[in-house]
Amino acid sequence: MSPPSELSAGFRASLAQAAGSAAMLTDPADCWPYGYDNSRRHALPQAVVFAREAAQIAAVVALCAESATALTARGMGTGTTGATVPERGGVVLSFERMDEILRIAPGDRLAVVQPGVINANLQKALATSGFFWPPDPTSAAVCTIGGNLAYNSAGPRAVKYGTPRDNTLGLRVVSGTGEMLRTGVSTSKGVVGYDLTRLIIGSEGTLALITEATLKLTPLPEAKRTLRATYADIHAAAAAVSSIMAQAVTPCALEFMDASAIAMVSRYSKLDLPEGAGALLMIEVDGPAACIHEAQAAVAAAAQCDGLLELRLAESAEEVAALWKTRKALSPALRHIAPKKINEDVVVPVSRMGEFIEALDRLAHESGIRIVNFGHAGNGNIHVNLLIDPNDPDEVARAATCLDAVFSLVLRLDGTLSGEHGIGLEKRDFVERELDPVALRLMHDLKRCFDPAGILNPGKGL
Amino acid sequence: MSPPSELSAGFRASLAQAAGSAAMLTDPADCWPYGYDNSRRHALPQAVVFAREAAQIAAVVALCAESATALTARGMGTGTTGATVPERGGVVLSFERMDEILRIAPGDRLAVVQPGVINANLQKALATSGFFWPPDPTSAAVCTIGGNLAYNSAGPRAVKYGTPRDNTLGLRVVSGTGEMLRTGVSTSKGVVGYDLTRLIIGSEGTLALITEATLKLTPLPEAKRTLRATYADIHAAAAAVSSIMAQAVTPCALEFMDASAIAMVSRYSKLDLPEGAGALLMIEVDGPAACIHEAQAAVAAAAQCDGLLELRLAESAEEVAALWKTRKALSPALRHIAPKKINEDVVVPVSRMGEFIEALDRLAHESGIRIVNFGHAGNGNIHVNLLIDPNDPDEVARAATCLDAVFSLVLRLDGTLSGEHGIGLEKRDFVERELDPVALRLMHDLKRCFDPAGILNPGKGL
Repeated sequence: MSPPSELSAGFRASLAQAAGSAAMLTDPADCWPYGYDNSRRHALPQAVVFAREAAQIAAVVALCAESATALTARGMGTGTTGATVPERGGVVLSFERMDEILRIAPGDRLAVVQPGVINANLQKALATSGFFWPPDPTSAAVCTIGGNLAYNSAGPRAVKYGTPRDNTLGLRVVSGTGEMLRTGVSTSKGVVGYDLTRLIIGSEGTLALITEATLKLTPLPEAKRTLRATYADIHAAAAAVSSIMAQAVTPCALEFMDASAIAMVSRYSKLDLPEGAGALLMIEVDGPAACIHEAQAAVAAAAQCDGLLELRLAESAEEVAALWKTRKALSPALRHIAPKKINEDVVVPVSRMGEFIEALDRLAHESGIRIVNFGHAGNGNIHVNLLIDPNDPDEVARAATCLDAVFSLVLRLDGTLSGEHGIGLEKRDFVERELDPVALRLMHDLKRCFDPAGILNPGKGL
Repeated sequence: MSPPSELSAGFRASLAQAAGSAAMLTDPADCWPYGYDNSRRHALPQAVVFAREAAQIAAVVALCAESATALTARGMGTGTTGATVPERGGVVLSFERMDEILRIAPGDRLAVVQPGVINANLQKALATSGFFWPPDPTSAAVCTIGGNLAYNSAGPRAVKYGTPRDNTLGLRVVSGTGEMLRTGVSTSKGVVGYDLTRLIIGSEGTLALITEATLKLTPLPEAKRTLRATYADIHAAAAAVSSIMAQAVTPCALEFMDASAIAMVSRYSKLDLPEGAGALLMIEVDGPAACIHEAQAAVAAAAQCDGLLELRLAESAEEVAALWKTRKALSPALRHIAPKKINEDVVVPVSRMGEFIEALDRLAHESGIRIVNFGHAGNGNIHVNLLIDPNDPDEVARAATCLDAVFSLVLRLDGTLSGEHGIGLEKRDFVERELDPVALRLMHDLKRCFDPAGILNPGKGL
């Protein structure tokens, strides 16, 4: 399927009829903003259709399947891997107008939503019910539930509460043939038939388009406490993470920053950190108010290990804000320091984290590329940031070699190339390095079952 | 594929070579015990092979695929649906000798096991590490992890800790073509490729044979408390279940018995229950010792509602045993009272449970079939037991009609036909009533991708 320069008049008329005239854009200037995502890649779609309901989506998909036109589903475009960039042109199906929360049932611990609901809006609507939906990507204020499901996006809370695959009961979807189907159940158990729900979650819009999701809710914790632990080096911090994960109180956030991340932030903000800080952990625990103090104490005890320079517990909202200041200053600092960052989200087993960061330091030294690491330590999910000047071709080349070495390292440590950002366009050339060849062939076979014409987000994910 | 009366001499010789001579049975008398499961159905396999390692399994599968010979994987045969009964003869592959725990890594919260490991043996081996693997089917003392994964078997703890799909990170499997492949990851996050792990879990050996599993571990709770709440009727109990599930402390068991179950037990044991007991809840909470009292209090408060006759909290091990006595007496009583019970494990949303049990009472009355209900109320997972005399053809016929009505009722209430026992042979005629026709067709397509010759447990599950 090569990018068509424009859609035929006949297809365009049929599409307008299927989409509804008020729900379609074809002027390139109007379509332009629907061609990018947060990877900063861009490709122009020939048409943008606003999804309104399952039957309309089914009609649009059927039309695209008939004419072998690429169809790329899109939430709010906050993904970082180019998965919603319509590389082969065709139609972008935007879910932004399909944003209704259809049902909240606290007694059944579930919510039924349309895919365009913004994550934060769902959390707000749930708050009075005493429940929440655990996935909390950094972009929660603007990203959609449908996007969260497409990427299996998680966030800090995943260490305790899991990812969308752990927090979704069932889906309504449209397959690549334009057929509507139901997957999963409305209950917390169910073993009739194969698990299509989780197969579709994380498939980046390549198997089916989600038109409705039944989400599993979790009770809101009564209380939360924050700790910040500073260590002399990454090995000490990694040992603390292992020790925290080996005891009974699972934190609801266990984030870390390495020495280069701390150094970077300290260039832009005055930091209240002890001398010689070589790694930092931000830890949060939540649970019933009656035992939050004990939970905090248990995690604090586990965080004590050789190389601990300082352990601070926040007792007030101001202190919480003060402790988070260093971590929150990181993203703006990263944006300032380098014209381009390659932001990876690899995962290694928690016990290999120290070894991994040390090897990254060596790679940075050898390649002359600045590498800054932070991330969700409790999951071993590390955002490895390569900071480069895109106008320096030599640096760009060295970064590519370095990234290749990072991926090899991750796989050698029994890790995975993506924890929560997905594959999209950015990582598709590396998928074969991780996946078993037989598994990869099977995945392509499964893709053909769902989407025989190969129109759903072609070229992404696998 | 029709049941062969015997295997050809050539096939038998090749199979012996692939299996290893010490790992194969062909004498019908030796094969006989491998032909049944706990459904009490039976079919004789022509050969039994004892799985020893992935390469051997791959060779056996390849051989069966070439000759279109049915191959049925089997743990300890504790399933209740006939899923391991080799209805079409052929080869039974027993995993009982593949029972090694390969690795326990508390810092990474994972264990790697062979499929023949007995659930209870894993829990025992884990205990000193401070972790456990949550799935706890009633048969935990004798059933295998491979079987738990094949059925997605759960148990009481699922209400808090989930099912095998929520507690497995990755698999090594052999597909129906005899190819070995890896699925999933060794970390708690990973989004590279489609989720084959969960697709295979719960597929009853119809997609691939699990040769190794990487299980996600959970910290052992420090403390546990038990409560027993007795209600005037099922509506009061159902309201209490909804109220318990709508608050923040999730019990680690929330089991119930209806009036007919209580009546049955009281015929065989002297029960210490208040007058007029029409429904009973057994509730357990677990967590840090520091807040176990508060957790118990929170659940006790939620259990208070109109129709509560008595709420008892156990303070000692003896009191715990006393409270559980009624529930534990149920299974032996059920075995005594009727020559045959049809034991279903349907699920309805928690909020519909009262309505469901009331409708079951009506069905029992109309059909003249005695129905006894108990189960995992927190999941809405209800074991509906139809007690019949198999020698009374009229009763057998009425029970079939009644069961049909039960399934219709479950589906009307937005439930599912199986929560943890699976489909096997027992429910395969009903699958089409629950599953979306497009989803069912896709499942058959997926089955063909994994097992083009259709040899893996043919005729089961879908």
